[in-house]
Parts: sequence; structure tokens; C-alpha cells
Amino acid sequence: MLKFDEQKQIESVAGALALRGKIEKIVDSICEKGYDDVYYIGIGGTYASALQAVNHIKSMSSVPAFVENAAVYTTTGNRRIGEKSVVVISSVTGCTEEMVEAVKKAKEHGACVIGFVDVKTAELAKMVDYEVAYPANEQLKFFMVADRFMKNNGDFSDYDRYYAEMERYLPQALADVEKESDEFGRNFAEAHKDDAIHYFVGAGAQYGATYSYAMCYWEEQHWIRTKSIHAAEFFHGMLEIVDRDTPVTVFVGEDAERPLAERVANFLPRICGNYTVIDTKKFQLTGISPEFRGYISHLVMHAVTQRIDAYLELINRHPMEIRRYYRRLDY
Amino acid sequence: MLKFDEQKQIESVAGALALRGKIEKIVDSICEKGYDDVYYIGIGGTYASALQAVNHIKSMSSVPAFVENAAVYTTTGNRRIGEKSVVVISSVTGCTEEMVEAVKKAKEHGACVIGFVDVKTAELAKMVDYEVAYPANEQLKFFMVADRFMKNNGDFSDYDRYYAEMERYLPQALADVEKESDEFGRNFAEAHKDDAIHYFVGAGAQYGATYSYAMCYWEEQHWIRTKSIHAAEFFHGMLEIVDRDTPVTVFVGEDAERPLAERVANFLPRICGNYTVIDTKKFQLTGISPEFRGYISHLVMHAVTQRIDAYLELINRHPMEIRRYYRRLDY
Repeated sequence: MLKFDEQKQIESVAGALALRGKIEKIVDSICEKGYDDVYYIGIGGTYASALQAVNHIKSMSSVPAFVENAAVYTTTGNRRIGEKSVVVISSVTGCTEEMVEAVKKAKEHGACVIGFVDVKTAELAKMVDYEVAYPANEQLKFFMVADRFMKNNGDFSDYDRYYAEMERYLPQALADVEKESDEFGRNFAEAHKDDAIHYFVGAGAQYGATYSYAMCYWEEQHWIRTKSIHAAEFFHGMLEIVDRDTPVTVFVGEDAERPLAERVANFLPRICGNYTVIDTKKFQLTGISPEFRGYISHLVMHAVTQRIDAYLELINRHPMEIRRYYRRLDY
Repeated sequence: MLKFDEQKQIESVAGALALRGKIEKIVDSICEKGYDDVYYIGIGGTYASALQAVNHIKSMSSVPAFVENAAVYTTTGNRRIGEKSVVVISSVTGCTEEMVEAVKKAKEHGACVIGFVDVKTAELAKMVDYEVAYPANEQLKFFMVADRFMKNNGDFSDYDRYYAEMERYLPQALADVEKESDEFGRNFAEAHKDDAIHYFVGAGAQYGATYSYAMCYWEEQHWIRTKSIHAAEFFHGMLEIVDRDTPVTVFVGEDAERPLAERVANFLPRICGNYTVIDTKKFQLTGISPEFRGYISHLVMHAVTQRIDAYLELINRHPMEIRRYYRRLDY
């Protein structure tokens, strides 16, 4: 299988889940001291992950958790971020300009910052109050923080059972999704390699999934035009430009907003002959209880899209690591 | 001038501003009783206006104000919306399904709802606690609510002077913008009438402006494909798909996020030969103090885009009131 090292994938997810002890200590010590609110601050891909984490929290809990775009925070600001605020960030390089500025500002206002900065020696890693360095798996890290805050708030009584299942079954389950999706990924890449534009529609945690997949993968890494749209918003404008040949893909997950995505998936066949529905429900996910599937369906979707990427890169002979402008020009 | 009745426009804006006394009474009585938080709930165009109002509040105040998408609220929910919450909504027809459901849910949880429902007899109008019926000018209405909450919170000391200026000068100033933009609107429509896709980029209140203009006007009413993107996010993916001929328009306003839009406007000429920058700063806005321009630049932009719409409709022989699917099919 192209670009797939099963053992490495399994170890990567298992290693991320093994950070939980460390994350629990951090969150527990914050909860002991008391806090007012939690802000996931991101930009680009990390902004999408922030949307997912906060959506997850809202669906289960009244923990006051909010998303901030790093650049919006450093300009418009947010006067509510202060000494009793917790800020959660993630950065692969640790030197993304907007993130450095946002964390600087949050620190000036007294916020406590939890940072998942992969490069331990980076500027950002030194600025945060709690640094956790481990590569990739950003969403798992964000969700582990979210889940611990919710557990401590009395909103996640299944926490221990959930994580016991995740540790035991998730790494293999996600690898299995990749294997089961391989043929789909190749066919999808072949069918859409020349798309002038591709539409991705999703709701719940899948909205963040469409947002980052469209922008950070197809636009940034494949140089193919996309639009991502929330399934609920699809019916308030975008539907009018869909016709027989418009390439539209709906990401259907298993959280509370599943009906919003299903509504688009059910409607599309009437007006579009070039649609795809990717429904996480069709995957087995051995060992994972039905009531927990919604919490991880964005990870399942990511496993599917990885297979698309592997083939799209090959078919289009477009190495995903090249950039035209990003960090190659001053702007 | 095509589709332009100056007197009617002036009266429409003046009439909206004249709602202020009524709005103040509503907000003051809520503030007297006490409240925890304010939620602007919308979908489609009203969601975009909600984004603008909350962005405005965040830039000036610590009033806890948040945006909710109506369909997300009715599925994922928001456990923080309760008896001490204020919900603000707007609806032209008063029968938008998602809005009816969202208001029903908010009421069940005890929230107090301020509704700008244009049709007094509509279902929604009867459900809200405070109903204000007046056509169009949704953003002005939302901002009047926001501004009164901020004034009562001690965050808008210039409130009286600001509204005295608005009442005296805004209606004519916006009409003047339309007149000054007429030629630009025709040229822009002529140049972009056949665009396969058009990109709109903006920040601050202009992000909401790009969102609704792209989706509710070009997609829904002109049937032209678009993507709207926040100027801060542009640099985290989308920039890679811009080339010489890509049609990109940047909305540059005068609020705190102006530098984010300027960054895109300054960068584009290096990689794109088909870009347009619409900067509200170039308009005179007679009588309006410099420090207030940022609060209304989304209205200025709307006056400009009205001129584009008038010509695009004519040139493409596509009447803006026709819909292919919206409210014509069951979905």
C-alpha cells in the first residue's frame, strides 16, 4: 500500500494516547487552582482542530470553551482572556508568526497556556506554561485536554472506560480504516484529479475536517481549488451553484450534527451527478462502543482522506511537500 | 442610475436608526434585570450578520457575546444558553425552519429573545419576547443592540455622539457611496460576469461581509461560484491556488483587523493579475468622525456591492429573485 507503514501509524496514535497521564496532571492542577474559561487558539489547520475540540465540548458539557483565531485575537482582541483563562495551542514548527504573537498577548494578560509544540526548542515551546512535545495527532491531544476538563466538571462519567477502549483499540482501528479505504482512495483520486474546484461539506467535527482537508491538503499541498462549507449553511446559498457535474463530497460523521450532513447527502442526488458521500458509519472500528464513535469520527475521516492524498500525489505527480508561496515569499 | 432610488434608500436607513429608542428600552430593561451572556443566533445571511455584531463587541468590550449557528444549536446545542441568556435574532420571512427551531429551544431553556422579524404575523414574531418589525437594515439593528449593551457596560462612552452623527449623516453618506461606486460597479460586473469562481477575502466585520456577499448574493442570486475566506486564513492554504488569472477581491475595512486585509492586498499583486481591492477608506463619508468609520465600514462595503449587483443582474440577464432549488424543492 502506497505511503502506508501500518506499524508506524499504530505507534504514532498509541504514543499520542500515552500522553494522557501528562495531560491529566496539567489539567487537574489547573482545575484545582480554578479557571474561568478555556480558549483554543489556532490558525489554519490548528484553527480547524480548535473548532473540532470546542464543538466536542459544547455537545457534552457546559465548560466555557471557545475558539479564537490567532490573528483575530492579536488585532480585534478578546478582553475576556485574562488571569483565570486557559489557552490551548498546537504548533508543529513552533514558529508560526501569528501563534507566537497570540501566545505573547495571552501571556501578557495572565492566561495559562498549554502548548503542544512539536519542536521542543522552538520559541513557542519556551513561552508556554505547560509544554507537551510529541509529533502529529493534534486532534487527539486537543481532545484529551477537552475530555479531562469535562471529566473534572462532572460531564464525562464514561471517561475511564472511553480511554481504556481508545488505548486498546483505536490505533489498530484507524489503521484498518486506511486499509479498507485504499481502493476508494485510489478511485476517488483518479476521478477528481482534474477538478477545477471541489466542494467539501460537513457538520459537527466533520466541518473542521472539511475545512482543513480542503484548505491544508487540496489547496496547500495538491494545488487544487476547493470550498468547504458547513452542511447547515449549504442550504442557504451554495446549493444554487450545484449542477450535474459539480464535484461535491459530503463528510458524514457520527456526532450530534450527523443529521445536518445527512440532509445534504440525501438532497444531492436530485441535483448532482458527481457527488460522493463518505460516511464513517460504514467502518467496523473493532472494539469501539457505539456511543463513543461520534467522538472519533473525524479521525476515521482523516484515515480515509490519507488514502486519497497518497494517490492524488502520485497521479498528479505533485509532491505534497512543495509550496509555491507559503514560507517561500515574504508577506 | 440602475436600481437606485436615493430617497427610498435614505429613508430606509433613517427609519432603521429611528428604532433606537425602542431598542434601548428593550436592552435597558434586560440590563436592569441582569443577564449572563448574549447570543446572536443566525443561519446563512443572518449568521454572517451575527459574526459581524459579535466581532464588533469583542473589539470594544468584555460583554460576553457569542455567535451561534441556528442548526448547530438545535443539534450539538449549547448548555450555557439558559435563563440569564439573551438571544438576538433576525428574520425577513419569520419562517426559516432552522431559526424557528432554534428560538423554540432557546425559549425552552428560559432565554430572553429579541427578534427583528420583518413579518409581524410570522411564527417567529410571535415566539420572541421582544419583537421589532422593520424591513431590511439587519446589521444596523444588530449593532444597535450590541452598542446599547456595551454602553450599559461602560464600554462605549461615545455612544450618544456616535448615534447623533449616524442619524444626521449616515443615510446620506451611504447613498453617496452608491453614487460614487456606480461606475466601479459596472466595470467590475463587466469584468467578472463570466468568472468560473470568484474569491472574496476580508477580515473583521468585512469577513462577514465577504461571507454573505459570496454566498447570499453571488451564489444564491447570481448563480456564480465563490469562495469567501478570512484574510488571516488566506495565508494558511488558499494562497497556493492563486495564479495570474484567479479573480480575487479583497474587502478592506477600517476596524481593528484592517492590517490583516491589507496584508493580502499588498501581497496579491506579486502573484495575481486579476485582483481587486475595495477599500472603504477612499470614501468621504461626510460628517462621520474618523474614529467611528470602523464601526460602519461593512455598511459602506454593502453600498459598493449593491452597485455590482445591479449591473451583474443586467449584464448576465439573470434576475436576482429567481431560485433554482432554494424553497422550491423539499430538502
